[in-house]
Amino acid sequence: MGEFELIRHYFAAAACAQAVDGVVLGIGDDCALLQVSAGEQLAVSTDTLVAGVHFPAGAPGELLGQRALAVAVSDLAAMGATPLAFTLALTLPEVSPDWLADFTAGLERMARQCGVGLVGGDTTRGPLSLTLTVFGRVPAGQALTRAGARPGDLLCVGGALGNGAGALPFVLGERAEQPGSAALLAHYWSPAPQLQLGQALRGVATAALDISDGLLADCGHIARASGVALFVEQQRLPLSAALLACTDNDDAALQLALGGGDDYVLAFTLPAEKLDALRAMGQPVQVIGRVEAGQGVHLLDARGRAIEPRHSGYQHFGTHRD
Amino acid sequence: MGEFELIRHYFAAAACAQAVDGVVLGIGDDCALLQVSAGEQLAVSTDTLVAGVHFPAGAPGELLGQRALAVAVSDLAAMGATPLAFTLALTLPEVSPDWLADFTAGLERMARQCGVGLVGGDTTRGPLSLTLTVFGRVPAGQALTRAGARPGDLLCVGGALGNGAGALPFVLGERAEQPGSAALLAHYWSPAPQLQLGQALRGVATAALDISDGLLADCGHIARASGVALFVEQQRLPLSAALLACTDNDDAALQLALGGGDDYVLAFTLPAEKLDALRAMGQPVQVIGRVEAGQGVHLLDARGRAIEPRHSGYQHFGTHRD
Repeated sequence: MGEFELIRHYFAAAACAQAVDGVVLGIGDDCALLQVSAGEQLAVSTDTLVAGVHFPAGAPGELLGQRALAVAVSDLAAMGATPLAFTLALTLPEVSPDWLADFTAGLERMARQCGVGLVGGDTTRGPLSLTLTVFGRVPAGQALTRAGARPGDLLCVGGALGNGAGALPFVLGERAEQPGSAALLAHYWSPAPQLQLGQALRGVATAALDISDGLLADCGHIARASGVALFVEQQRLPLSAALLACTDNDDAALQLALGGGDDYVLAFTLPAEKLDALRAMGQPVQVIGRVEAGQGVHLLDARGRAIEPRHSGYQHFGTHRD
Repeated sequence: MGEFELIRHYFAAAACAQAVDGVVLGIGDDCALLQVSAGEQLAVSTDTLVAGVHFPAGAPGELLGQRALAVAVSDLAAMGATPLAFTLALTLPEVSPDWLADFTAGLERMARQCGVGLVGGDTTRGPLSLTLTVFGRVPAGQALTRAGARPGDLLCVGGALGNGAGALPFVLGERAEQPGSAALLAHYWSPAPQLQLGQALRGVATAALDISDGLLADCGHIARASGVALFVEQQRLPLSAALLACTDNDDAALQLALGGGDDYVLAFTLPAEKLDALRAMGQPVQVIGRVEAGQGVHLLDARGRAIEPRHSGYQHFGTHRD
């Protein structure tokens, strides 16, 4: 048995690879078998993280394990799906038992947090990269897509913006620790997929996604898919407190919140009359703008005047960029 | 829009990414949505191919595209599943339109051959590698696993052995073309997943897998999972005619058939009384041995005497090794 086959056995023994509801057959055969109940559909998403592109090559295994899974599961949250399982394709330049133990610990923690089981994958030798494919269940016809926003809807986000972009200089070691940087790093390495919010948005939101490319870029995805215009009111954006603590001025923080990626909070549209019920459920909802007939994403100042974003929101930014 | 986002649009426009039965939502949202009918389970398998490890770094895109998908779909065949969809995580060091067009053409051809639709993935910059996750449907409880072989069963394979290992020196350019080499290369670059055979084996075979690690190694997987001994009768092995044409002597071919991987024909066990019906259906079935109580894989010569395999069947071999 080669070392990489040993690793596969190692993953098969992980707690998150044991009996999971909805998993008929897990690691160890040619395929895993998933059970999807009548009336449900299966949501599927694939994410690749490459060392030196999406994370620093020397990133601690534990942080990498938890972040990789969180980033992938966030796509399930964005569809309103309930996480079920994931596969992990791990390519490693060499086998370091310590690194693997750390990596698995991080993976385990996030798997438990998200309620998702490891059901298969592949372990190969090569330059460090990870591809995770995640599976979730969603009642047929109730998945949240990007395509249903309607003129008159409110535009909302599920939490603070700018943590991902704010964390980057600290992740890359370009800036020394300071007040707020620990909170930014925690957000970066352990984003919390907004699963409960996503599920609460089923039948409520008209469009949704998770903010990975940056607020303006992701709003652009909704605008295009729905064939509408989105108006973002700049002064209503909930800027990350940790980001504000780490930036010289509020405007710098604002630009990072608009253009930076990797926040993994949900952005969504909904009819105004749905707002109170959602807030009464205790869901975090921040109205940041509205949907109108038209196209594109339009940024408004406090007086409702159009502003040209300085940061191009249509370019990838941060570690999520290609 | 960055070049890698353009690539995603390119894949979204591919024929194999268009309407596919069972795919509710394809490329372009946070997740794809798959429909699994009541009474069916979803089979899932993930395979990674890394340049320089699993294929030559300079491999033509078209050949790589069709081989990568075929290798992944072969795992669906091994479960008796009907292919439904796949995701593609493609990591590229640079964007070459010609290479991408070639790659997509190969992917398209194999997707059409296997009846499988592209529903998502990720495209990133980095050292060339591919991770494919394939999805298939199988009636609940009827998937073929490795775990059901019973003493008294026959051990069978679905086709000629040794094509994968025989092709390697030609793939790697270590040997010049010769009679038989073109057929070996065709097998290597375009393996045909035995989907019909796998589906015909539902309710018939007691255990099954596809031969990727090599006959003896893969028989070892069945023996372990089923808790039985497998006896392989050496003289009954269907050696690839192309391999025989390219090897100096029959014994060299035999050793490649026993220890080499990448054949992607099915190996399976079944009760003897099922054999005739399967053959009457026109399915390719070659009996190569039998299942007995015990453990391990045992190679027998023409007189039924145990032989020590010279090639260790328990090590990965060929491009499939780690």
